[in-house]
Amino acid sequence: MSRPRPLSGFPELLPRQRIVEQQVVDHLRRAFELHGFANIQTRAVEPMEQLLRKGETSKEVYVLRRLQAEADDGGDAGLGLHFDLTVPFARYVLEHAGKLQFPFRRYQIQQCWRGERPQEGRFREFWQADIDIVDRDGLPAHYEVEIPLVIADALRGLPLPPVRMHVNNRKLSQGFYQGLGIGDTEEALRIIDKLDKIGADGVAELLVERVEATPEQAEACLRLASISSEDASFVDEVKALGVADPLLEEGLNELAAVVEAAAEEAPGLVIADMKIARGLDYYTGTVYETFLEGHEGLGSICSGGRYDTLASDGKHTYPGVGLSIGVSRLLVPLLQSGSLTATREVPTCVLVALANEEDRSEANALARRLRSRGVPVQVSPSAAKYGKQIKFADRRGIPFVLFDGDEGLQMKDIRSGEQTPVDVDVWEPPAADLHPRIVAE
Amino acid sequence: MSRPRPLSGFPELLPRQRIVEQQVVDHLRRAFELHGFANIQTRAVEPMEQLLRKGETSKEVYVLRRLQAEADDGGDAGLGLHFDLTVPFARYVLEHAGKLQFPFRRYQIQQCWRGERPQEGRFREFWQADIDIVDRDGLPAHYEVEIPLVIADALRGLPLPPVRMHVNNRKLSQGFYQGLGIGDTEEALRIIDKLDKIGADGVAELLVERVEATPEQAEACLRLASISSEDASFVDEVKALGVADPLLEEGLNELAAVVEAAAEEAPGLVIADMKIARGLDYYTGTVYETFLEGHEGLGSICSGGRYDTLASDGKHTYPGVGLSIGVSRLLVPLLQSGSLTATREVPTCVLVALANEEDRSEANALARRLRSRGVPVQVSPSAAKYGKQIKFADRRGIPFVLFDGDEGLQMKDIRSGEQTPVDVDVWEPPAADLHPRIVAE
Repeated sequence: MSRPRPLSGFPELLPRQRIVEQQVVDHLRRAFELHGFANIQTRAVEPMEQLLRKGETSKEVYVLRRLQAEADDGGDAGLGLHFDLTVPFARYVLEHAGKLQFPFRRYQIQQCWRGERPQEGRFREFWQADIDIVDRDGLPAHYEVEIPLVIADALRGLPLPPVRMHVNNRKLSQGFYQGLGIGDTEEALRIIDKLDKIGADGVAELLVERVEATPEQAEACLRLASISSEDASFVDEVKALGVADPLLEEGLNELAAVVEAAAEEAPGLVIADMKIARGLDYYTGTVYETFLEGHEGLGSICSGGRYDTLASDGKHTYPGVGLSIGVSRLLVPLLQSGSLTATREVPTCVLVALANEEDRSEANALARRLRSRGVPVQVSPSAAKYGKQIKFADRRGIPFVLFDGDEGLQMKDIRSGEQTPVDVDVWEPPAADLHPRIVAE
Repeated sequence: MSRPRPLSGFPELLPRQRIVEQQVVDHLRRAFELHGFANIQTRAVEPMEQLLRKGETSKEVYVLRRLQAEADDGGDAGLGLHFDLTVPFARYVLEHAGKLQFPFRRYQIQQCWRGERPQEGRFREFWQADIDIVDRDGLPAHYEVEIPLVIADALRGLPLPPVRMHVNNRKLSQGFYQGLGIGDTEEALRIIDKLDKIGADGVAELLVERVEATPEQAEACLRLASISSEDASFVDEVKALGVADPLLEEGLNELAAVVEAAAEEAPGLVIADMKIARGLDYYTGTVYETFLEGHEGLGSICSGGRYDTLASDGKHTYPGVGLSIGVSRLLVPLLQSGSLTATREVPTCVLVALANEEDRSEANALARRLRSRGVPVQVSPSAAKYGKQIKFADRRGIPFVLFDGDEGLQMKDIRSGEQTPVDVDVWEPPAADLHPRIVAE
């Protein structure tokens, strides 16, 4: 068998890179739990009709088939891999509604799959970390303020550049288009979403072509999309465009509330930005996109919004609001470029050296004593020369080697070369050495 | 949209059940890291030719297809979901061999998928937690002793019935069959593997039919399979059957070493059991199966073995030994029966009550102060009557509610009803209340 080649779009991490990813995910998880979000995991597959229900996603889905599917097998026909965590979550809420307490706060950290053509920062398999709050029948607006603050809290303390969250409200945009007299406001939103890709002229052309906008209407849409502010001053700027509509008014109020509350609780985090549209059709209110300063080319690393109509069982609707951190989109480029790395590639803090293979059982007992106090330890693979055993530790970044020699037990810090007698039942490594740490370069 | 129905074979957990699963996985992870195992994650998909290379697994694989696959697309044709973590790990080792340090100790906790007909304790999607040690060209036998001891350590401290690990060695069985004069020893092993399912008579019949065994040879195979012991006394019992073969001799020595070392370091854990065969073809030495006492019907909850030929790139081979805990097989039945549950269904320890909606920002500030000291907190969804807010906490199992009233800040333990003035910058919950805990019933 020859050496296997990597699969484009399916990134895999080396152990040292994985330590960084794992610590970042642990940090997010801890933050979400501090805010009272409960974890769930949904199965990787959904019925195709669920996956194709909303939005322009049909191109992207991976369909499953059992290799030896039988004719009488109805059980897993028509299954596909989920492409995000929102659609499966909405299904989970409907399926288990009778056993959940509402409002239901959940976080979910799982893989997703999209059959897109792989490109910079876009993967076919990727990790997302989502938080959502879903309620029954009605969802108070204060959750649209809370969700971005939780994300800000979760990203704080990570070795990442500062983030800026761009927020808009679909009622604002669609109300504005409606007030202008444009008929298909959803399609108009989808066209505005392409602004960064195809530019203002391209957008104006599409608006004329696809939603029968006049050049003046197209111009007004573009002027709306150019408005942004860190406070509520965008409200006056929008009103100055001279369009009046009740939905627009609602959107302006809701967006102002989000921006003002965020300015108070997390200054500098949120900016109102009227060009934000989000590609997925299920959003109905506030929408969010988040950019890493200096890495805007990565695209939005955390997106989401409010959805009022994603889940409904006829008796109740389950409106929600959520944000999704693109863990792979955020980390994989920083890991591959070496901007983020870890102090070592193994959890091991101490290697127990072996003088003779016959001593392995005693070495195991020493290791056990250190482990019982929380120190990660492994025993040397062989009773090679001590120099070779130290090299074994050094290659992996293991900081300490424990020797049992004529002078009793000795702990060697292989970075300084310093070696001192040690009582394994009291010894503790410096706090910075107990576990690998993330290093940002 | 009507209420979605569960998919057979794809179990999903409610938040309270998931807390148990998450804490069990965290416990395993911590134990593996204390033993110096580094974590990796492999992509969910492998090329079909990798998945079909070894063993009788072809029936079980889920094949992927992009919904709108194009003719010129070679990128993800012929991909399937992995059915275990050993085959992807062997591929990972080959692909990244130049960047890994050997011997390489890794753990991996991920989902796997098999298109099997769902049945008691068998799922189409399930979690596994694997540890393996892989070396280059040669693998010392002491790792075959170490791996079960790490698993024993990892399972210790979990609220589970005691486990018993049944160990055999393929060299022993195949050497014995060879010494008897049976030609196709691999097929003979596969037949012995069915002993629990089809009984002694069925096995004898198949041995005669498929590997042309005489009735006497079949009888000898069955007598071998009936031998088991907690110490090395099985060696004499096997020798008493009067079969001599160098491979058998090797297997006897290796198995005796594993059993004796385990008896010393983890008394009562390991039993030599000559009927253990393992269905997968890639094992070449020690093989392990593990049963929960009183829950033998679950089948083996932790299986594995030594494989010498799974990974080879022409220049080097990468022999390994590993064990895989069937996390779903172990936990899902215990969770569904209610034998394992958690003290609450949310991470939240304190609910901050709200007297007026206008106080939300102040309540958020109180929550922040508690969170900064590691206490999981959420703010009440609305300024409903206090009785309703207490009920909100009670339904979720949140133990404490913080009130800001005329008498200043008061912390109420809603289980006892006791309410006391509190300084949120010093208050700490009892250690048992800070996070949800697993309860075994």
